[in-house]
Amino acid sequence: MAKIVLKGDIVFTSNKDRFETYEDYYIVAENGKVVGIYEELADEYKNYPIKDYTGKMIIPGFVDLHLHAPQYPNRGLGLDKELIPWLNTYTFPEESKYRDIEYAKKVYSNLIKDLWRVGTTRSVIFSSIHRESTKLLMDMLMDSGLGAYVGKVNMDRNTTPELTEDTQRSIVETEEIILEYKDKSNLVKPIITPRFVPTCSVELMKGLGKLAINNGIPVQSHLSENVSEVEWVKELHPELPDYVSVYNEYGLFGQTNTIMAHCIYNTENEIDIMARNGVFAAHCPYSNYNLSSGIMPVRKFLDKKVPVGLGSDISGGNNLSIPSVMVAAIQASKIKWLETDKKLQPLTSSEAFFLGTKGGGIFFGKVGSFEEGYDLDALIIDDSSLMCGNELSLEERIQKFMYIGDDRNIIHRYVRGNEVSEPK
Amino acid sequence: MAKIVLKGDIVFTSNKDRFETYEDYYIVAENGKVVGIYEELADEYKNYPIKDYTGKMIIPGFVDLHLHAPQYPNRGLGLDKELIPWLNTYTFPEESKYRDIEYAKKVYSNLIKDLWRVGTTRSVIFSSIHRESTKLLMDMLMDSGLGAYVGKVNMDRNTTPELTEDTQRSIVETEEIILEYKDKSNLVKPIITPRFVPTCSVELMKGLGKLAINNGIPVQSHLSENVSEVEWVKELHPELPDYVSVYNEYGLFGQTNTIMAHCIYNTENEIDIMARNGVFAAHCPYSNYNLSSGIMPVRKFLDKKVPVGLGSDISGGNNLSIPSVMVAAIQASKIKWLETDKKLQPLTSSEAFFLGTKGGGIFFGKVGSFEEGYDLDALIIDDSSLMCGNELSLEERIQKFMYIGDDRNIIHRYVRGNEVSEPK
Repeated sequence: MAKIVLKGDIVFTSNKDRFETYEDYYIVAENGKVVGIYEELADEYKNYPIKDYTGKMIIPGFVDLHLHAPQYPNRGLGLDKELIPWLNTYTFPEESKYRDIEYAKKVYSNLIKDLWRVGTTRSVIFSSIHRESTKLLMDMLMDSGLGAYVGKVNMDRNTTPELTEDTQRSIVETEEIILEYKDKSNLVKPIITPRFVPTCSVELMKGLGKLAINNGIPVQSHLSENVSEVEWVKELHPELPDYVSVYNEYGLFGQTNTIMAHCIYNTENEIDIMARNGVFAAHCPYSNYNLSSGIMPVRKFLDKKVPVGLGSDISGGNNLSIPSVMVAAIQASKIKWLETDKKLQPLTSSEAFFLGTKGGGIFFGKVGSFEEGYDLDALIIDDSSLMCGNELSLEERIQKFMYIGDDRNIIHRYVRGNEVSEPK
Repeated sequence: MAKIVLKGDIVFTSNKDRFETYEDYYIVAENGKVVGIYEELADEYKNYPIKDYTGKMIIPGFVDLHLHAPQYPNRGLGLDKELIPWLNTYTFPEESKYRDIEYAKKVYSNLIKDLWRVGTTRSVIFSSIHRESTKLLMDMLMDSGLGAYVGKVNMDRNTTPELTEDTQRSIVETEEIILEYKDKSNLVKPIITPRFVPTCSVELMKGLGKLAINNGIPVQSHLSENVSEVEWVKELHPELPDYVSVYNEYGLFGQTNTIMAHCIYNTENEIDIMARNGVFAAHCPYSNYNLSSGIMPVRKFLDKKVPVGLGSDISGGNNLSIPSVMVAAIQASKIKWLETDKKLQPLTSSEAFFLGTKGGGIFFGKVGSFEEGYDLDALIIDDSSLMCGNELSLEERIQKFMYIGDDRNIIHRYVRGNEVSEPK
């Protein structure tokens, strides 16, 4: 039975309303799961291997619910455009390159190193339409020790010729990946990934919904990111009342665990269906700024008990760092409150921290918190360089790390109780 | 006559509408000023000392038009509040500490190192009300080799007792600093700094306006940052039509070079007066997010030919890095366009770059560009770590640096043709 004890200044959010702080405490884990947090170490734990991080912060690993691996080389490029022209000019041409497995290897190696560097211990990733590159990405993630869901993208309409799949082949290849990978690793798993309604025919969505339900495989897609996109879906599917109903009709909306990225323009009724079906919203504020998409009214989703996490949305988003995304989420919620709707209270620091840890983490099970039974995914934060003259409380230190820290402050990463070293 | 040649991939914006790019060119400077940019080095320059940065980018140093030095320890703290409670709870108590010169030394040493680190070669700084700490900050900046305007803050009403100055003493101490420092350094200069109308009596503003005009000293203050603040100024000064008119009445609005931070809620008429008087607006998007202040309609100011630069506004702003502020300015302008006013076209990448270099730089004279006669303030950017698979144009490389680079990519800094080493 693997055992470990970490000692230091422990901070996490078991609920969004406050930081829980334990200064100079011990966190004990067995088999990768948290047993408890203690001021003094009981005799039964005294022979466990102990890592002494006195004076450093111990916080949950970050969870990124939405990013596109093959767009990694495009970070910071082409951001003077909106969603649809950006897809056609920058994104689709880049994604076409991933039939070349050597190119994929080079890019994915960079991405995985950077995920490790910024402390993202779990992520939910769109790959490209290419089966072999998708499998490569899953294999490389397994080697890294990080946790992830990875989905081969499905598209059979309204995209470039190189990225338009044959419907049946798209379904068959997706099934092949599922069968090969669903039990291959405890940390890296497949996820069904129709890009979004406009690029998926009814036949494709039906087939993928069946695959998901029959194999108990989760689903990810995009929802209501942009006004023109919402209009487009209405034109494509006049037979159904709204965007959500299209996914729901074909078994892709909470029939298995589901994440929908963006959710900026959902109707109240659509949000109610998300809550009822337990569908996660991945809030991606940087991307929504960059592509002039809008600001998701996060507060509405939280009030209606929709599960919400954060996404970097590389490369619509430019910033891979989840603490930076937390701050962007707070800032976006303040602007939404101020310029649009005074009923939507801005996010607090602890709420944003929750979204980027446990909020997204529960998509993976018991992840993103240090409550008993949770996976010990932890980061050790040396924040001494962020101090400047004053003694700070632990709650102030975590806020300072969120607002002004970076990957240089992260000195160790643990996933399920194991330290993860820098990927090769 | 000091001479220098830098060789590399040169990028700058002599106007906001486009990047000027010179791949593998030479930039020649004499006495700290740019002579020209050349593909081949003419015979007359061949014996000049040459720094070969082939493959690296050479860009203008960054200009920060607005930050509060004594708030540096507060970065990332207290940002769940709006302007007035934030001032009273976090800011004023911190600023009271700077009567202690040793404390000031510790904080200012951190700040100056970090300004150097993030490539801010010129900044315009609010100190505290304390004469000795203000002089210390100016002396330390002189030692550093960076350029700055530094102002002792003036306040004689509506603040905490410890920070309320005697009106006459405030004016006299300000004059003492001006006389001692106005010709002491070419790079570090005094600036008259009434905090903002609510904390300055008419007598104080009158006295400072006279000091400015009689000594030809520039002025900085805050303007229309927050709706309650604008209301407050109306209540305090019912005798004058608007906020701008209060500063203008007392010789603090363009009678000498003037910067006003924020400018979110100015009327059209106020913007016209700014344009007429040549008053600079310092746009501080991070601060305006963090304190739920609002989004400055930058496009209006640019269209009316008001000079605009960027400010980090530490510690309302959390981020000292001007390239990050450039990106925040673009993102804020997209949200303004989208959620509030479709007539206000979002900023482009080159416009944001211009604001953070030449836009603010011209407050210092010929600064922030590589046109002939401009000061050679330059940063050498090693962006090799930002590449990921693809060949990029120089225009794409500068965008990538703005969006995903950080201080680790800045490998050398020059001010007026001299390399500036890390401050002690």
